[in-house]
Amino acid sequence: MKNTTFAIIFLIFFSLSAQQDNSPNFIIVFCDDLGYGDIGSFGHPIIRTPNIDRMAVEGQKWTQFYVADPVCTPSRAGLLTGRYPIRNGMTSSKRHVFFPDSPNGLPLEEVTIAEILKTRAYATAAIGKWHLGHLPKFLPKEQGFDYYYGIPYSNDMDSNQWEEYLKKSQNPDYYSNTKFYNVPLIENTEVIERPADQTTITKRYTQKAVQFIEQNKSKPFFLYLAHSMPHIPLFASEEFRGRSKASLYVDVIEEIDWSVGEVLKALEKNQLDKNTIVIFTSDNGPWLRFKTHGGSAGPLRAGKGTTFEGGQRVPTVFWGPGIVTPGVIDELGATLDLLPTFAAFSGADLPTDRKLDGYNLFKVLTKKTDSPRKDFFYWAFAELHGYRNDQYKIHIKQREILEYGKPTIVLDSPELYDLKADISEKYDVSQTLPETVAKMLNIMDQHLNDVSDAIPDQLAAQTLKN
Amino acid sequence: MKNTTFAIIFLIFFSLSAQQDNSPNFIIVFCDDLGYGDIGSFGHPIIRTPNIDRMAVEGQKWTQFYVADPVCTPSRAGLLTGRYPIRNGMTSSKRHVFFPDSPNGLPLEEVTIAEILKTRAYATAAIGKWHLGHLPKFLPKEQGFDYYYGIPYSNDMDSNQWEEYLKKSQNPDYYSNTKFYNVPLIENTEVIERPADQTTITKRYTQKAVQFIEQNKSKPFFLYLAHSMPHIPLFASEEFRGRSKASLYVDVIEEIDWSVGEVLKALEKNQLDKNTIVIFTSDNGPWLRFKTHGGSAGPLRAGKGTTFEGGQRVPTVFWGPGIVTPGVIDELGATLDLLPTFAAFSGADLPTDRKLDGYNLFKVLTKKTDSPRKDFFYWAFAELHGYRNDQYKIHIKQREILEYGKPTIVLDSPELYDLKADISEKYDVSQTLPETVAKMLNIMDQHLNDVSDAIPDQLAAQTLKN
Repeated sequence: MKNTTFAIIFLIFFSLSAQQDNSPNFIIVFCDDLGYGDIGSFGHPIIRTPNIDRMAVEGQKWTQFYVADPVCTPSRAGLLTGRYPIRNGMTSSKRHVFFPDSPNGLPLEEVTIAEILKTRAYATAAIGKWHLGHLPKFLPKEQGFDYYYGIPYSNDMDSNQWEEYLKKSQNPDYYSNTKFYNVPLIENTEVIERPADQTTITKRYTQKAVQFIEQNKSKPFFLYLAHSMPHIPLFASEEFRGRSKASLYVDVIEEIDWSVGEVLKALEKNQLDKNTIVIFTSDNGPWLRFKTHGGSAGPLRAGKGTTFEGGQRVPTVFWGPGIVTPGVIDELGATLDLLPTFAAFSGADLPTDRKLDGYNLFKVLTKKTDSPRKDFFYWAFAELHGYRNDQYKIHIKQREILEYGKPTIVLDSPELYDLKADISEKYDVSQTLPETVAKMLNIMDQHLNDVSDAIPDQLAAQTLKN
Repeated sequence: MKNTTFAIIFLIFFSLSAQQDNSPNFIIVFCDDLGYGDIGSFGHPIIRTPNIDRMAVEGQKWTQFYVADPVCTPSRAGLLTGRYPIRNGMTSSKRHVFFPDSPNGLPLEEVTIAEILKTRAYATAAIGKWHLGHLPKFLPKEQGFDYYYGIPYSNDMDSNQWEEYLKKSQNPDYYSNTKFYNVPLIENTEVIERPADQTTITKRYTQKAVQFIEQNKSKPFFLYLAHSMPHIPLFASEEFRGRSKASLYVDVIEEIDWSVGEVLKALEKNQLDKNTIVIFTSDNGPWLRFKTHGGSAGPLRAGKGTTFEGGQRVPTVFWGPGIVTPGVIDELGATLDLLPTFAAFSGADLPTDRKLDGYNLFKVLTKKTDSPRKDFFYWAFAELHGYRNDQYKIHIKQREILEYGKPTIVLDSPELYDLKADISEKYDVSQTLPETVAKMLNIMDQHLNDVSDAIPDQLAAQTLKN
């Protein structure tokens, strides 16, 4: 009996420590311009997302999860480095994102999630849209990824008919033609197709993702699967185009959901589902300027390019049976938190020579404790627009919609919203809570001081055309 | 062997026919002014509704389910009779609903769900808000219910401080005082408490509901559990008030979710869960006039009192393990359909001497086939405002918000929305689809002819005060 008891205790200890030492795999499924309201379990009445909904039921559905910035390049820099993009020069008042004529990229001295996980012998791959520098010296292979397959910037760039496209952007029969964009498809550092055939791009990313999982089933891996969709122009494969009988946008999201299902199937087939954390999220809110061709922020105000909730809060699910305790989490979280969280799970060291803005979510994920994140700073275009602390959010500058060339509005007096009672940011309560306003403005000032040692703006520079 | 085979076949046949003949119990949980977006699984980021969410996962979540009218009395009349309220005099251009000085009620010659199910020996109870006539001759006992416990009209009526209440309605510390309203609590036909203590009303309805289930576990039953909440003024019991740390509205919905959990528990405890269909829904959209004290229609436009989607589309779940095939249903359905659906499940005959507007949803619920409902007419205040056919909705009249005394806007030209591509009714496409507009206007004309034999307006009449 004693021996049996000892054996049981040993087994429990062993399995507990195995759980902690047996570094889990990480997969981030990162969509482009997917809105808070565009997933079934986040309230969309039409779009069917059974696979993501299943992840939400079996895992944690986060209802107040933020991206580091409401546009593409800075949002991605924030996710991969765990730092507000103002710190690494990845946000600009002059150019919002990297363009095909940009000479720069995410500075190589920045430490990415992939680089951190390489110290723990992870296999790493970036599949999909990069948008952190398209020149060879800035591509994923230089930032800790063993493998890269995807497009280096947005799928509407390098357009040879940009003006026409903008005019006719409400007509997908016109704009959804791969030939109008000269976007390259790159494998590692080599251009393998130009223009990339975008109609099959979600499908091809998925095939590469499944292949990467199969090839690395015996060691820990990190897969960053950054879909180019549903960024406009929209493309769906033959199997999905028209399938929803609702709109091309709906078809596109349903193909992404299919892709999620393929990833989960590959994990289950290879018995990796009990040791993998899959995170589904988006890089910023919906591109509302394109009306029914963009998505919906659900009950949240505004969309992409704004620091209202619709611009920066994204539908987020953490799935990992056996690791992630199921539930709905309405505490705060951010893509900034993924780097320290992955470090905690994998035992990797965090860089100590720079400031990080992320929190370690290990305990919330495994034990559903309170989130360590209690606040969030809203940055856009290298300007600090707002700050959230618990339920209150203060706004000192804002944009209602992303329109290029239009300046930010500086508010005459700050606006304060109670995001728990007023989920759609309709009712300014600053007049009734002057002390809260003063306290929050003060914290914003401190934060501005704290980022004063930032790397200079890397986005503004432009290579002169011949 | 032959005998065994025969026995198995016999058993299969027997159990199949038992399934069909063994009439299921029905429970309708009907909320008051709960918005489309106020449930976790319908996208609310703050309100926690684990019990309703569980129903949605185990049962059918309907994302395009309508109420017969965007205000209280007509919506209830539509649900209970399966007829647009214009047919039974239950909608009016003069008074929106019944008031404490109304001499009328739902005409007794109308046939309710309860009366239909009485022909199949169902036990029937109405618990909660009635609002179809408060005089004894119009109370639930006269409309097919064996038992009644609840308040006869809205919880803000009979106010002795109505003007003050309206002014201070943003301050629940002020208005949430039961003493400001002289609403009676009635059991069967007897007033047992006046004013009703509304702070415990959700809890007491729940206790009565559980008691009714316990008492009728051996025969088929129909329970119509029509919560008075979250109609303003809001009330939550001591256990729930302040619990969410978000707002009183959130507390109130979380208490309703608790109530749903108690009902499910009672079914499970009495082994009734495999033979009961529970429907969770609301009588109309959120009362947006009261700002953060009302709820949210999520991504849908406008709220209560309007024929935009936020006024008439409600968060709806059908739960019934073993009867209802799980899934998300984005086909059309309406509370009008419950009467014919319950008739089909129970084997009751439908009235043949009058026009019904409901469809039988038996096959959608049991086999997830297409819904037989392909269209819907939007009525408000005895005016036909709009019509939906598949994805298109036409509006000829509208109100943006329910404000008493303000007339409906008659549009200069009809507006057409594609509700599958444009879930928030933002983009009028009438100019590009003139044939669809003409066809739909024609169907509206036919419908107006079809209801021309309606019972006269029963809501307008008012008893003179002494």
